[in-house]
Amino acid sequence: MPKVLVFGTGSLGTCYAWALSKAVGQDNVTAICRSNYEAASRNGFTVHSTLWGDNLTFQPRIARSVAEAVRQLSLDTQQFFDFVVVAAKAVPTDPSIAEIIGPAIVKGKTAIVLLQNGIGIEDEYARLYPESPLLSTVAYFPATQVSPGVVHHKEVELLHVGTYPADAPQAHKNIAREFVELLGKGGATAKLHDDIQRKRWAKLLVNSSWNPICALTRLRDREFIEVSLDLGLGAGNDKWGDGARFIKDVMMEIASVAQAYGYSDVNEETVDFQIGRAVVRDLPGVQPSMLGDAFEKRSMEVDAIVGNVVRLARKKGVNVPMLRTIYLLANGLSESFSRKKLQG
Amino acid sequence: MPKVLVFGTGSLGTCYAWALSKAVGQDNVTAICRSNYEAASRNGFTVHSTLWGDNLTFQPRIARSVAEAVRQLSLDTQQFFDFVVVAAKAVPTDPSIAEIIGPAIVKGKTAIVLLQNGIGIEDEYARLYPESPLLSTVAYFPATQVSPGVVHHKEVELLHVGTYPADAPQAHKNIAREFVELLGKGGATAKLHDDIQRKRWAKLLVNSSWNPICALTRLRDREFIEVSLDLGLGAGNDKWGDGARFIKDVMMEIASVAQAYGYSDVNEETVDFQIGRAVVRDLPGVQPSMLGDAFEKRSMEVDAIVGNVVRLARKKGVNVPMLRTIYLLANGLSESFSRKKLQG
Repeated sequence: MPKVLVFGTGSLGTCYAWALSKAVGQDNVTAICRSNYEAASRNGFTVHSTLWGDNLTFQPRIARSVAEAVRQLSLDTQQFFDFVVVAAKAVPTDPSIAEIIGPAIVKGKTAIVLLQNGIGIEDEYARLYPESPLLSTVAYFPATQVSPGVVHHKEVELLHVGTYPADAPQAHKNIAREFVELLGKGGATAKLHDDIQRKRWAKLLVNSSWNPICALTRLRDREFIEVSLDLGLGAGNDKWGDGARFIKDVMMEIASVAQAYGYSDVNEETVDFQIGRAVVRDLPGVQPSMLGDAFEKRSMEVDAIVGNVVRLARKKGVNVPMLRTIYLLANGLSESFSRKKLQG
Repeated sequence: MPKVLVFGTGSLGTCYAWALSKAVGQDNVTAICRSNYEAASRNGFTVHSTLWGDNLTFQPRIARSVAEAVRQLSLDTQQFFDFVVVAAKAVPTDPSIAEIIGPAIVKGKTAIVLLQNGIGIEDEYARLYPESPLLSTVAYFPATQVSPGVVHHKEVELLHVGTYPADAPQAHKNIAREFVELLGKGGATAKLHDDIQRKRWAKLLVNSSWNPICALTRLRDREFIEVSLDLGLGAGNDKWGDGARFIKDVMMEIASVAQAYGYSDVNEETVDFQIGRAVVRDLPGVQPSMLGDAFEKRSMEVDAIVGNVVRLARKKGVNVPMLRTIYLLANGLSESFSRKKLQG
């Protein structure tokens, strides 16, 4: 059976650790825990899912660090991980996550799976581990860790999977297929894609706009639309008002970057579809993860989700003044949280 | 002696009430108080100023409402106000401040003085009281109300004064001069301008940019520069980095609106001068009033300071994508505070 290391057991990491435990057996899964280490060591994990079932408990191996996870393999027949799944939040750390997982990566044997939001997040892994198969994923998976080791999940579960880069060797493509099949065996829905970046851009349309906008305004998506209906900016008589027009213009900037990179199916049609989803929600609407981070004064995935889009735009000479503004502001807000901690 | 009503006794209103009390006698000044009514009734006001002197106490008439202020005149020889000075924060209320002061405005006798930030804030007063002289002012006056009725002031004190509109009748111009002379008599520095809007635009350059940017990021000006030094946006090797470049671009949008309205002296040179002031400050830098409002979850002067600039830009077909973004975000943040209050 393949062995799996899951780095980061927030809501997403925990749920996919459950599916992988079902597929390969929980003894072949090691979860790296930080704040939920005590709880997970004592009680394992519990997932309550409207799709997978209620009260799903499992007890994988638990480690505090990658070194500890590797040590735990020393008496096993197979002393390396086949998959290292990175499910931690994509925020800059020192050392970086890519560096931290180093001890668990065995050249030619270990594949790395990135279960993270954003764009351009694969670069550092590809640079540090050029020979390791690198899988990039896009998750549609609304879940919340309600207490240490206990996760609620609802509505949808879908993981898009593909190699990085899209033109990786066939051997890597095969490993992507293997990973998708493992998840299927574990009861999760995963789809294999030849070019996963297309899916990343499609998700960014929503993520790079709503996430920072909600975090900066401290409003949920539908609330933002509501308080911005008529600001005298010309769309007050439109069906959805000045706020929705603003969101559309921001999304169109993101789409223009996607198009500059060849993803022409991220366009006005998909933008309108995404706006349409938000405006018909009941008040107060959805709370994007970054808004939750802002309320808790946790650092936010600003670079992965917004900054990289602005930098990619710059490389292609695409003008994104609104997104650049949002980036500088969201970066400042996120930095204010760490400054508070430093000062306090 | 002229009679003066001061509507709004925050830090600025209190300090100019002191100067006017010195000029016309405190019995000829009525201050409308809300949260500091009890304190001001009991102890009057106290100003501690590095320029005017320490421990300056005065006891004008105090009223809770405009109606009460007018009633208090009923036994006086002169039963109307010569000047109604509006020093309340320029945030939308219902009824509006312009409507609220109505009972104190005697046609042909009472002049209205707006001691408020922003642009385009005179319109409603001009519409409601077309025959009343309307004075518009721009204050450089760093002051803080440290406890109810007690204000600290430091460094500079300067009030620019002019009629609204700039081409008001000579009679109104004379009243502007009279008001400037009153302030001078009271120990304050006031300057008369033929076109006060020029001064408004010059101040907006700083206000419309730093105020909302600091409020949204929860950082002081110099801190914002500091956390945005190198974001990979091309100005990382400049002397002041990506954050200062961003601020400059926002200010240039404001300048382009000012220029569209004929104020060509609000330009790159003045922008560079203002950036230069911020970047050389010691950390953490200055806390703009809107950042204080954000920390206290008070509604912010978003429309007066940012929204009106965006709407004026729109009227002239000037493109201000960054400022529009800042406006929508700051408006949302300010609305989130009132929603919290409604819900809580």
